[in-house]
Amino acid sequence: MKQIAILGSTGSIGRNTLRVIEAFNGEFGVAALGAGSNIELLAEQIELHHPRLVSVSDEESADKLRSELKQRGVTAQPKIGIGVEGLSEVATCDGAEIVIGAVVGALGLLPAYRALEMGRRVALANKETLVIAGELMTRAAERSGAELLPVDSEHNALHQCLRGQQRREIKRLILTASGGPFRNSSKDEIENATPAQALKHPTWRMGAKITIDSATLMNKGLEVIEARWLFGASADEIDIVVHPQSVVHSMIELVDGSIIAQMGVTDMRHAIQYALTYPDRHPTELPPLDLTALGKLEFFAPDTGKFPCITLAYDALRQGGTMPAALNAANEIAVAAFLDEKIKFSDIPRLIRAACEAHAPQPASSLETVLAADRWARDWVRQKIGGQWSTVSATF
Amino acid sequence: MKQIAILGSTGSIGRNTLRVIEAFNGEFGVAALGAGSNIELLAEQIELHHPRLVSVSDEESADKLRSELKQRGVTAQPKIGIGVEGLSEVATCDGAEIVIGAVVGALGLLPAYRALEMGRRVALANKETLVIAGELMTRAAERSGAELLPVDSEHNALHQCLRGQQRREIKRLILTASGGPFRNSSKDEIENATPAQALKHPTWRMGAKITIDSATLMNKGLEVIEARWLFGASADEIDIVVHPQSVVHSMIELVDGSIIAQMGVTDMRHAIQYALTYPDRHPTELPPLDLTALGKLEFFAPDTGKFPCITLAYDALRQGGTMPAALNAANEIAVAAFLDEKIKFSDIPRLIRAACEAHAPQPASSLETVLAADRWARDWVRQKIGGQWSTVSATF
Repeated sequence: MKQIAILGSTGSIGRNTLRVIEAFNGEFGVAALGAGSNIELLAEQIELHHPRLVSVSDEESADKLRSELKQRGVTAQPKIGIGVEGLSEVATCDGAEIVIGAVVGALGLLPAYRALEMGRRVALANKETLVIAGELMTRAAERSGAELLPVDSEHNALHQCLRGQQRREIKRLILTASGGPFRNSSKDEIENATPAQALKHPTWRMGAKITIDSATLMNKGLEVIEARWLFGASADEIDIVVHPQSVVHSMIELVDGSIIAQMGVTDMRHAIQYALTYPDRHPTELPPLDLTALGKLEFFAPDTGKFPCITLAYDALRQGGTMPAALNAANEIAVAAFLDEKIKFSDIPRLIRAACEAHAPQPASSLETVLAADRWARDWVRQKIGGQWSTVSATF
Repeated sequence: MKQIAILGSTGSIGRNTLRVIEAFNGEFGVAALGAGSNIELLAEQIELHHPRLVSVSDEESADKLRSELKQRGVTAQPKIGIGVEGLSEVATCDGAEIVIGAVVGALGLLPAYRALEMGRRVALANKETLVIAGELMTRAAERSGAELLPVDSEHNALHQCLRGQQRREIKRLILTASGGPFRNSSKDEIENATPAQALKHPTWRMGAKITIDSATLMNKGLEVIEARWLFGASADEIDIVVHPQSVVHSMIELVDGSIIAQMGVTDMRHAIQYALTYPDRHPTELPPLDLTALGKLEFFAPDTGKFPCITLAYDALRQGGTMPAALNAANEIAVAAFLDEKIKFSDIPRLIRAACEAHAPQPASSLETVLAADRWARDWVRQKIGGQWSTVSATF
């Protein structure tokens, strides 16, 4: 029985990972679970999967978990870790062969890095990790021989398309984008979009942060940076195509003009299962894709005028060093502020651009350096939003 | 310089093969050319590519070629072979590493078989060869270690999709079909379609016989049988999806629900080049596929009520032995009779069904056996058309 550790077990990817493990009925075991403050769900997961180690956000949550487990009559309580240290313990716990990296945001970086250093397979759903520290992560994987497998449906698709291909024969990676809820909206409508409107994703059901990223198309920008590190492609070799049906999960173009595409239904369990069973594929009980029921698949060029986050991400990738870390951190704070209704939808790219322009990028030589850039950008954006954002906004 | 022999050099695939060879500018040489009676074009090809051996349909054509070459001032005239023996000499000529099998119909069988026996790579555009003698061809290739590569765009696509996959993980092969010119026609309109209407293929420019096969969808039926032998799949593992844009050239479905598709522009030179350079891919000057310019891709289930040839082909494949050879031969004669305006469009499937019902299939144990079935079906259909076809037609 292969043991799995899940960073972010109560989130969307974490819950789906446990469903995949349940469907396999004994092939995979749960060694450790890292969660935040959704204690009730974590207790439920512990009751069902019996991990020996779990992690929560803070002492208060740990106390809550202990009493919740007691109340449920769970006698063999797991060891409980706290914060990023706790998550790192989960990632490096005894016996886990595969670590699912599904913590949202920069918090997932250190634990996933530790797992790679140990040579463990890391199935990464946390794209921010590679955006912030792609070079460091992939180098760590190379040193230890660890496999870094993408759970993001687009990169998972690219991984599938690239199997059996030779690097020198790859011309382009083509990431598909749903286009988000504002694909057909005017610039004015986008300017004043509300959180409720932005949270209505046309094809995928995901967490709030990533859903807003899909609405700004920053999600796709971050994926471009992610693809750069996962597959060793340059910014010029990675393109975006808007594909509203989200059926073609991504494509590669070969030097001879052939395009290889991966398609499937929009259910994250496919990519999760792929990462768990790789290099093998196992049958699934999920309904198959019926192309004839879909009718049509559409493809459009992305509108970077309406969605400037795409260009911001390409620019950050080309500038390199700590710039993608600053971009990502600025985005996280701006999205949170938008969800709190502190800024407008169109302020998200404005704030990110301002933060990137203010950032003096350093070579991404260590985790400390990229995390310092991350903190710097968070503070910078928080300060802008806190006080004089209206002044800054006016300067664009 | 890799030497190539082309069976069918003056046809659509043959001409495109020479264009690919010309574009490579020195990487490939032309060892031998097999043609029929298009002597002027053959003479031109000889002048340009200097093969040491050519083949034509009969002595009259050979004489015509000699004088044509003399007139053009070609001093080093190639050796000239005749008929199927001449084609076999072309296929087995000294020094050719790759044989392009692009003779239309059953005529191409023996030459391609001889090349496989010698362990040569055969790039096969002649699907009838595998329909008639798939088992014998693939066994010959296995014995000699020869590579049998498909030039048909659909099977070429499947070959590309299957690279890097494990056989036990393949669930289905999905052949795409343009649907032909009568996709949206009523049964009545199809019943009385003229050759001119049937020859208007929506997406591919090909020879007359294969274009009519695309209109009846027998082309797709023959491709199902071809796929069975090329990829060792059963009839139940091969599906057809109508895709009018002919951009997705075919797909595979894996056991985990993932679909891998190959796409490209509708230009046969892609598949030809793939077969010449395999396992490598080389850059091409052909324009790349621009998905965003296409707008949409559609997929429909095939209508076997309107296009009964699909069912006839599946039935013949399931019955096995010499039945596919009889099906193919009956189709060739029926298509020729339709082009000669001797029968109606809808008589094509009627004649094929009648021939298959009259055929007593034998195990496909030798080339003689399958060629005997081929001759039997040709004679049977010719006789029906010659005399009492109207009586036979009335019995359906």
